[in-house]
Amino acid sequence: MALDTFVPVAPGSDFPLENLPFGVFSRRRQSGGDPSCCCGRVGVALGEHVVDLGTLSEAGAFTGPMLSGADCFRKGSLNEFMALGYAAWQEARTTLTRLLSSAEGVLRDDRTLQEKILIPQSEVTMHLPARIGDYTDFYASKEHATNVGTIFRGKDNALQPNWCHLPVAYHGRASSIVPSGTDVKRPRGQTLKPGSTQPHFVPSAVVDFELEMGAFVGPGNQLGSPIPIESAKEHIFGIVLLNDWSARDIQKWEYVPLGPFNGKNWATTVSPWVVTLDALEPFECPAPVQEPPVLPYLREQHRTTYDVQLEVQIQPRDSSEAAAVSASNLRHLYWTFPQMVAHHTSSGCNLRPGDLLGTGTISCEDGPGSLLELSWAGQRQIAFECGGSTHNRCYLMDGDTVILKGHCAGPNGRRIGFGECRGRVLPDDSQC
Amino acid sequence: MALDTFVPVAPGSDFPLENLPFGVFSRRRQSGGDPSCCCGRVGVALGEHVVDLGTLSEAGAFTGPMLSGADCFRKGSLNEFMALGYAAWQEARTTLTRLLSSAEGVLRDDRTLQEKILIPQSEVTMHLPARIGDYTDFYASKEHATNVGTIFRGKDNALQPNWCHLPVAYHGRASSIVPSGTDVKRPRGQTLKPGSTQPHFVPSAVVDFELEMGAFVGPGNQLGSPIPIESAKEHIFGIVLLNDWSARDIQKWEYVPLGPFNGKNWATTVSPWVVTLDALEPFECPAPVQEPPVLPYLREQHRTTYDVQLEVQIQPRDSSEAAAVSASNLRHLYWTFPQMVAHHTSSGCNLRPGDLLGTGTISCEDGPGSLLELSWAGQRQIAFECGGSTHNRCYLMDGDTVILKGHCAGPNGRRIGFGECRGRVLPDDSQC
Ligand SMILES: [Ca+2]
Ligand SMILES: [Ca+2]
Ligand SMILES: [Mg+2]
Ligand SMILES: [Mg+2]
Ligand code: NI
Repeated sequence: MALDTFVPVAPGSDFPLENLPFGVFSRRRQSGGDPSCCCGRVGVALGEHVVDLGTLSEAGAFTGPMLSGADCFRKGSLNEFMALGYAAWQEARTTLTRLLSSAEGVLRDDRTLQEKILIPQSEVTMHLPARIGDYTDFYASKEHATNVGTIFRGKDNALQPNWCHLPVAYHGRASSIVPSGTDVKRPRGQTLKPGSTQPHFVPSAVVDFELEMGAFVGPGNQLGSPIPIESAKEHIFGIVLLNDWSARDIQKWEYVPLGPFNGKNWATTVSPWVVTLDALEPFECPAPVQEPPVLPYLREQHRTTYDVQLEVQIQPRDSSEAAAVSASNLRHLYWTFPQMVAHHTSSGCNLRPGDLLGTGTISCEDGPGSLLELSWAGQRQIAFECGGSTHNRCYLMDGDTVILKGHCAGPNGRRIGFGECRGRVLPDDSQC
Repeated sequence: MALDTFVPVAPGSDFPLENLPFGVFSRRRQSGGDPSCCCGRVGVALGEHVVDLGTLSEAGAFTGPMLSGADCFRKGSLNEFMALGYAAWQEARTTLTRLLSSAEGVLRDDRTLQEKILIPQSEVTMHLPARIGDYTDFYASKEHATNVGTIFRGKDNALQPNWCHLPVAYHGRASSIVPSGTDVKRPRGQTLKPGSTQPHFVPSAVVDFELEMGAFVGPGNQLGSPIPIESAKEHIFGIVLLNDWSARDIQKWEYVPLGPFNGKNWATTVSPWVVTLDALEPFECPAPVQEPPVLPYLREQHRTTYDVQLEVQIQPRDSSEAAAVSASNLRHLYWTFPQMVAHHTSSGCNLRPGDLLGTGTISCEDGPGSLLELSWAGQRQIAFECGGSTHNRCYLMDGDTVILKGHCAGPNGRRIGFGECRGRVLPDDSQC
């Protein structure tokens, strides 16, 4: 059932009134000014606009018990709002849904206030949604783990013995997480030439994307107090698209025995709009059956995930168009976000508001989420049509822009969208 | 040459005027009050006192060009001071050395100011020195890597092929870093019983310490701009003791292929006083020769480290005494801190002020830095005398307190000390 708003929302927009994803924006100065200014504010996306929650809150719009006294929107990050927990998120959603609906006059009939709080998205710069204290990247897709395992160890030993028993993960690098639209630079690092045992230090020759989603943590837990699986969902604020850029040659040489390091710590891109679980609720669906059964601390009463259609596009340097190179879906992910939270904290590890949990590459049967899989470790090129010519790729070329998209498809063309997670690969600029 | 101060400093103190390590403290309330109050201030340790730099700065004591206008001491972390760089650190050291010396009257003769800024260490609570954005743990000791490799893969394959070419590292968990004196809780997790292929979820049976040191990053670098080896040292503010608590059974089952996760993310303890490189300078010494030679981006003109004597003590639950169980020295570390910085950023990864770089377990020929090595993976117990009785350990028992100590020994019994890094293992409190 579509909700009506007095704000114009085009059919098929990622951001109808049912979505209301949260993000942090700053207004671009009319002329000059620092485009990277970080003194952001919290907003929600609606059609082609951002609704400025900082100003709306100053205007006294949030009168509910959780938010009337809180100062969580005139901030450059969502951390404070995330920390407040579900009651506050629900109150914000309810308040905004009412205020922005066609049936409610308070904002609809107040042109002056509308002018202040409705800003075209074309006039804002989007920032990271949160100060990310810690970033964890999981390895939760069975298809991805199987593909990678088959490439490196053969079909018979594809999945490691632990894989079906726990959501494998590693700690990622928080400092190099950047918002969509940030250029990333081809990293240099140690790699082995085929057949050689002596590493050399060169620009990576095999730069890849990884199609992932990321969950932002809401309320955290105290060190030493695990979050039980039953309440794990309450600790998740919402979800974004995530591109875990990977330099496969650097990773391959460095990762034994302590895992990926420089192969991945040079950039991770996230989409700026955090879609809440409430917005995703209509698209809840069963998660894959787990066999063998998991241990009790990972066992879910209602094992659900979300039907999020995902796509990867590449836009080559001289092309004005992007072409799809793969498609996948969050619903195939073997491990769910609540299982990630329960496992992560089962040791006593503390999560903090704003922490980010990446799913790992989301591959499905016909939709690998990385070029490593698409090119089967560089053994076959993929071809795509774009701007009237054919492009071939094993891995990313300088100037390639990678665009991740995601949405849930509802009835009548309505959708809950994630916007996009975009980044362009710049050439290495060293003299080496 | 010993420097004289009018503040009483006992012979053999870790904190003579030559040291002046930086930390963050808060005064304990006279009665009641919240002992975990976190509104700290910056101080330096001198003998048994803390010198309150926040108050000293309010009193106008810092008149140099870097610090007269800065507000970096009335803070609950050292991040702002760390970010200012070497000129500011040197200015603070010079100013404090003068103000606190017996020869200078400004503070010596001002009893009122002294009362305000000299606080007995017994009356303060020490906090983490910095807000740690990212924590990286290296694996820089050849003796440790060889011991661990021999235990798990045999003598002939002890060192992985990459080990001599790059300082192997993984991203650690920043949220669970705690200051010395914080109790830690035995974690639960998935482990395999010997001979079994089905994991069970139980309290870890093999909780270990790792004797490490950690470097705090001063000025950082921009994403995409590696720090060259020649200037890497300028990015290091100072050094602390670090205990990288490890649950070996959890680690063993989970770590393939992405590295340690829940086996280590439940606690990491650091000592509260950050000893600057200027204080350590008299104890600079040659670092181990590297053979095979390293690649140019890791090659140092003057390859030095510091002669820091390290000790691990265990104090069993019912004992009022602690006994030494191992001794090592930073000087044996194969990879230096500048090499860690150069390698870490060679991909373009950005470091930020306050980031923490752990060395990895510092073992030497007769001084293994972990119980994994001391007990050779549980095959032989170590014995130590303590409080009149003999104690045997393969791994840590509930109630054990682990105390790391470190110091540089100078002439005439003077020393530059690190204080201690202390933590007690509490039992798991679950019903499982
Ligand atoms: Ca990944
Ligand atoms: Ca370690
Ligand atoms: Mg990444
Ligand atoms: Mg640790
Ligand atoms: Ni406080």
